[in-house]
Amino acid sequence: MDLSALETPCLVLDRGKLEKNIASINQRMATLGVNLRPHGKTAKNIDIVKMALDGQPGDITVSTLKEADYYFSHGIIDMVYAVGVAPVKLDHIAGLIKKGANITILLDSIEQAKFAAAKAQEHGLTLPVLIEIDCDGHRSGVTLDDPLLVEIGRLLHRENGVTLEGVLTHAGGSYQCQSVDEIRAIAETERHTAVACSEVLRQNGLPCPIVSVGSTPTANFAEDLAGVTEVRAGVYMFYDLVMAGLGVCKENDIAISVLTSVIGHQKRKNWVITDAGWMALSRDRGTASQKVDQGYGTVWTLKGDPLEDLIVSATNQEHGIISDRSGGALAWDSFAIGSMVRILPNHACATAAMYDRYYVTDGSTEITDVWHRVNGW
Amino acid sequence: MDLSALETPCLVLDRGKLEKNIASINQRMATLGVNLRPHGKTAKNIDIVKMALDGQPGDITVSTLKEADYYFSHGIIDMVYAVGVAPVKLDHIAGLIKKGANITILLDSIEQAKFAAAKAQEHGLTLPVLIEIDCDGHRSGVTLDDPLLVEIGRLLHRENGVTLEGVLTHAGGSYQCQSVDEIRAIAETERHTAVACSEVLRQNGLPCPIVSVGSTPTANFAEDLAGVTEVRAGVYMFYDLVMAGLGVCKENDIAISVLTSVIGHQKRKNWVITDAGWMALSRDRGTASQKVDQGYGTVWTLKGDPLEDLIVSATNQEHGIISDRSGGALAWDSFAIGSMVRILPNHACATAAMYDRYYVTDGSTEITDVWHRVNGW
Repeated sequence: MDLSALETPCLVLDRGKLEKNIASINQRMATLGVNLRPHGKTAKNIDIVKMALDGQPGDITVSTLKEADYYFSHGIIDMVYAVGVAPVKLDHIAGLIKKGANITILLDSIEQAKFAAAKAQEHGLTLPVLIEIDCDGHRSGVTLDDPLLVEIGRLLHRENGVTLEGVLTHAGGSYQCQSVDEIRAIAETERHTAVACSEVLRQNGLPCPIVSVGSTPTANFAEDLAGVTEVRAGVYMFYDLVMAGLGVCKENDIAISVLTSVIGHQKRKNWVITDAGWMALSRDRGTASQKVDQGYGTVWTLKGDPLEDLIVSATNQEHGIISDRSGGALAWDSFAIGSMVRILPNHACATAAMYDRYYVTDGSTEITDVWHRVNGW
Repeated sequence: MDLSALETPCLVLDRGKLEKNIASINQRMATLGVNLRPHGKTAKNIDIVKMALDGQPGDITVSTLKEADYYFSHGIIDMVYAVGVAPVKLDHIAGLIKKGANITILLDSIEQAKFAAAKAQEHGLTLPVLIEIDCDGHRSGVTLDDPLLVEIGRLLHRENGVTLEGVLTHAGGSYQCQSVDEIRAIAETERHTAVACSEVLRQNGLPCPIVSVGSTPTANFAEDLAGVTEVRAGVYMFYDLVMAGLGVCKENDIAISVLTSVIGHQKRKNWVITDAGWMALSRDRGTASQKVDQGYGTVWTLKGDPLEDLIVSATNQEHGIISDRSGGALAWDSFAIGSMVRILPNHACATAAMYDRYYVTDGSTEITDVWHRVNGW
């Protein structure tokens, strides 16, 4: 079946680009001598995550327990649930562990550690725990200078039902960098902070076998990962316009795009109207703060060739407006009513989340597979 | 079951507020003497749409063919598919009509009209068609002064396979109003433009039985709907912070909220960290351009009482940051780790779209129903 026969909007995945992106990061991690723990939050699909694991049984990262259930049902055993644990989710996690999953949880407070220990004791099992470290002030975690780090470590080491496995940090600030040099600097801060925290724990007689860091930008530009035991990243599988704007990838590396039909012309305004609105593209405007604002996405032909200077400049729920950056006239013949174009996403995680499946191609417009996604919680 | 036992994030629907919002708009339409054709794009759920139809067999509006399939499978026959039709969807629409649905399509070009006529002839059926009118320049449609209106009308009237049913417009610009007076003015422009277009068609010997207008703001503030045969609206069922900012509803009328767990404290920054990030709240920042920017949403207690001045000031994929507008200290005792709060949505359509179900309450924290949603395409 050809892409042009699909009802629009829908999500297209270029398998060749996906494979290239995966191979590239795997090569990088091998050179740096560190394990990659792919994050399943972007793809939310087992076929893709298996490719990322490159045939190994593999350990992954998840952002929801729905992902954990799904990946476990497809044979993935070892998962870090990399969002600070909410007490109400501990029974669910215990249930997965009883079925044979190895779920490591994350926390940054004495309260969470106590909840986890109590719940694990109630279930008669042991919960592996990582302490979340704040390396760049952008969200959660304990800072290197905070005595809470050792307090939580001691509690986890002492209490029954929990084991202190190590530390985890995420340089989320890397998404706001303005240059590759800034990303390199943040990567080193991410590494250094996590390793320093692991040393503080060890100096206090506490174990810290795992030192986990990661984000797609820092994974791409870290120059040294000494002391780090694993890197987590997810967006690299697809990449997106935010990553291209950061210099982490080229626009041509982006593996997913939204296929959309031209449903109208507003010639007085130089607008092409499509059926991919914000419901199809997501409301993400991550490039708005970058050097080049890509609107709601750049525009490619059905076959996958870039249409220079065209962006989705506005959206409604089920309508997108394509226009030229400069406001100039469009080549109307290229946008016949009923013809199709593809929109590249600002943020792969956000755009993909609007879909329940990928239409996989081999780079042509022929659909070779349909892969499903596990959305929600 | 109580809300506090749910795994977060999840979507809560207050049935009492829903019923009140529906009753209020129904009363308004009755007073104005016009039919309401509820839009199923916000709720995407049959239980809610049946309430909106108030026990009548009822006609509705849809924004996707997936909604059309779903609502038809639950007994709704008459639907306006209010997005300019993409030719690739005509077979699907024909299939629904063959099964007994009455789907009216929308278009604003000669090309679409020809595609529709050809496809209907191929299937041996008749497609009812509305011509989309542009009343405020914000998106699609033919303007009142454009000779294309009559050209499309003539083609639809002449060709086999299609019938000209009338005109449809949507004052999408009403969402950007700065005052109720502006909304009143736009409502009159919406009405006047649609009616004037219907008169142009009739003056040219063409039929125009349907004159369809609507948006939630204009439905709430139109003072006269003379010449209009039906009003479409959907957001009014739930309302949201954008509508509250417009003066269309009170924040207390908002019927949906996202339930989230407190998973961390960043006391140095006066941040509460929750597990409702942009995946749970959507990326919609519709209040950013209003008088009061509500961030990613306002904060209510688990029981449904407002926490004044608190907003979700930032989000990541699975993390939300609650802070005080003024940057002031938080009452940490109200945000114990593991406790729950509710976040009110900027845009009901966008936030609800992140969920596959509603947890319905009667206003307390007791869950009385679970209603499913039909997302995607």
